[in-house]
Amino acid sequence: MSENTCIGALDIGGTKIAAMVADASGPLARLTQPTAKTGSPRALPEQCVALLEAACRQAGIDAGRLSRVGVGSAGPFERSGGMIGLASPNICGGGKNDPALPNDWEVVPLEQVLRERFAHVTVDNDCVVALAAERTFGAARDERDCAYVTWSTGIGFGFCVDGHILRGKNGNAGHAGHMLLSEREDAVCGCGNRGDLEALISGRNVGNRLNISAVELFGSARAGNAEAHEAALQAARWFGRGLYNVTAALDTRLFVIGGSVWTHHGAWLLPVVLRELESHLPALTRDVSLLPAALGGLVADVGALSLVMPAEWVARWRDSKPWSKMRGAPDVS
Amino acid sequence: MSENTCIGALDIGGTKIAAMVADASGPLARLTQPTAKTGSPRALPEQCVALLEAACRQAGIDAGRLSRVGVGSAGPFERSGGMIGLASPNICGGGKNDPALPNDWEVVPLEQVLRERFAHVTVDNDCVVALAAERTFGAARDERDCAYVTWSTGIGFGFCVDGHILRGKNGNAGHAGHMLLSEREDAVCGCGNRGDLEALISGRNVGNRLNISAVELFGSARAGNAEAHEAALQAARWFGRGLYNVTAALDTRLFVIGGSVWTHHGAWLLPVVLRELESHLPALTRDVSLLPAALGGLVADVGALSLVMPAEWVARWRDSKPWSKMRGAPDVS
Repeated sequence: MSENTCIGALDIGGTKIAAMVADASGPLARLTQPTAKTGSPRALPEQCVALLEAACRQAGIDAGRLSRVGVGSAGPFERSGGMIGLASPNICGGGKNDPALPNDWEVVPLEQVLRERFAHVTVDNDCVVALAAERTFGAARDERDCAYVTWSTGIGFGFCVDGHILRGKNGNAGHAGHMLLSEREDAVCGCGNRGDLEALISGRNVGNRLNISAVELFGSARAGNAEAHEAALQAARWFGRGLYNVTAALDTRLFVIGGSVWTHHGAWLLPVVLRELESHLPALTRDVSLLPAALGGLVADVGALSLVMPAEWVARWRDSKPWSKMRGAPDVS
Repeated sequence: MSENTCIGALDIGGTKIAAMVADASGPLARLTQPTAKTGSPRALPEQCVALLEAACRQAGIDAGRLSRVGVGSAGPFERSGGMIGLASPNICGGGKNDPALPNDWEVVPLEQVLRERFAHVTVDNDCVVALAAERTFGAARDERDCAYVTWSTGIGFGFCVDGHILRGKNGNAGHAGHMLLSEREDAVCGCGNRGDLEALISGRNVGNRLNISAVELFGSARAGNAEAHEAALQAARWFGRGLYNVTAALDTRLFVIGGSVWTHHGAWLLPVVLRELESHLPALTRDVSLLPAALGGLVADVGALSLVMPAEWVARWRDSKPWSKMRGAPDVS
């Protein structure tokens, strides 16, 4: 590819979408908007195309020069005609999903609409994209057996084994936040599961069960409240059991951990998590490392770029870290 | 490779080892012996070399013609100097393992000793090898997203995602029989875990907890004993939860199931397992299939051969199924 090559990235969440364009020197522009949730099922991918085109205009480049687009999106995905569509319960209001959503979409034809406009499109789960970013530029550089975990509103994973990032039959590998760990009936997940990891410890659920927010819970725990302290430690032990289950299945060497809970509280929760992990099957767990994510709020954008980036850009970007100048880009809404 | 190429296979378990040699026409000889557990840590791999050489003699071929050897072995493995060694708790008596074992081995230098004798050696976990056999010749032919599971004395898995068989940092991917599913203190696994899948349902443990053997339990359940029936159904539900956790993590399409429990009781347990699996995260679970393993007692031998087999043999063996003539090969002990 020539120095003139431009690539695009999309980060699609339940609340907002972000579009970024970049050339060999680094990201050129980044725009965000609230996620479209009304109109036809094509509305959201058409919004994505328009936001990428707006980012191109802001960067002063022709959108026709975008040779490749990488996409990180909330899942789960459904596959139809070989194309990935979104069946995310916080975007699609059809079926058994949240009746408060202002649409009756069953599946958003994401890849199909993007391919009508762009020749090369690669769509992956948002945690898979974050893993790609951390492997290419962050805390898991060149690590063959690693996982990205976010501990935030929900719990999500991206897995890499033997140097292969795992996708699965419909691109849904990594939904291990929904692994069942307990028979507790009172820990209910948004997906309907009882006793899965997300139900037990996600930012939303750990607070719900004690009638305080997760921020209040961990803050109160660190301020010395005994009940909150025990609840926070219990959450850390559940997280450790989750990481242990992944290690038993995949023989993982390194977990890179992001998300708001870990970003703010990871340092003091780490010994508890590690002790729980290492208390099982030492032949597999004794050399496992846990590191905080390195790329912060731009992990999904940079990861989506890394999915489609010419190989010769990587060394240059590793040196120059050009994404760091993009922090605090303004919203367009 | 020429028509004269010969390959070897080893199947190493806690009770016995088997050696097989084959040429393009099919397996030529198979010998088994009780697993060596005395002497130096080299005793077991040296026994493996001798048994392969004996199998060559029986087949009337020169052991020097064995260009490649595939090995399926009980795990877990430890890696030292890039070579796989065995730290299997039912073979190595050192460390915290069973004091009744007649040795103090910490790690058996399996790959190192085999490589002193054979130029090309590939060592994999026994369930990974079984998965390779079922993908090449059995119930999971050419399936990209699948798993092999054995439900027997223990519970073991082999995983394939996106067409890649998963090994992990030390070749220990697939130890998901040791995933934690419950907080039950009374379900204790041989590895020390409480409430892992193997502790809850393995052939050894499901019987222990009711003071009857697994065979008695499932037999009694089918004969109409209400208590045994409920315990068997509960075991099937735990198994379904285990398969669900794997599906959530890896987006698996097909489980091929072997082992004595499933071989004898899978047909009537299947609806219970499937109902439990499908009751979670339908976007991932609604199209998952469960099939019985196709290769029976020779799955590990044929799988070990398939690890090192010239590609042009595969189509020929798929047609002729030459392993079927090897059933009932005699023991040499």
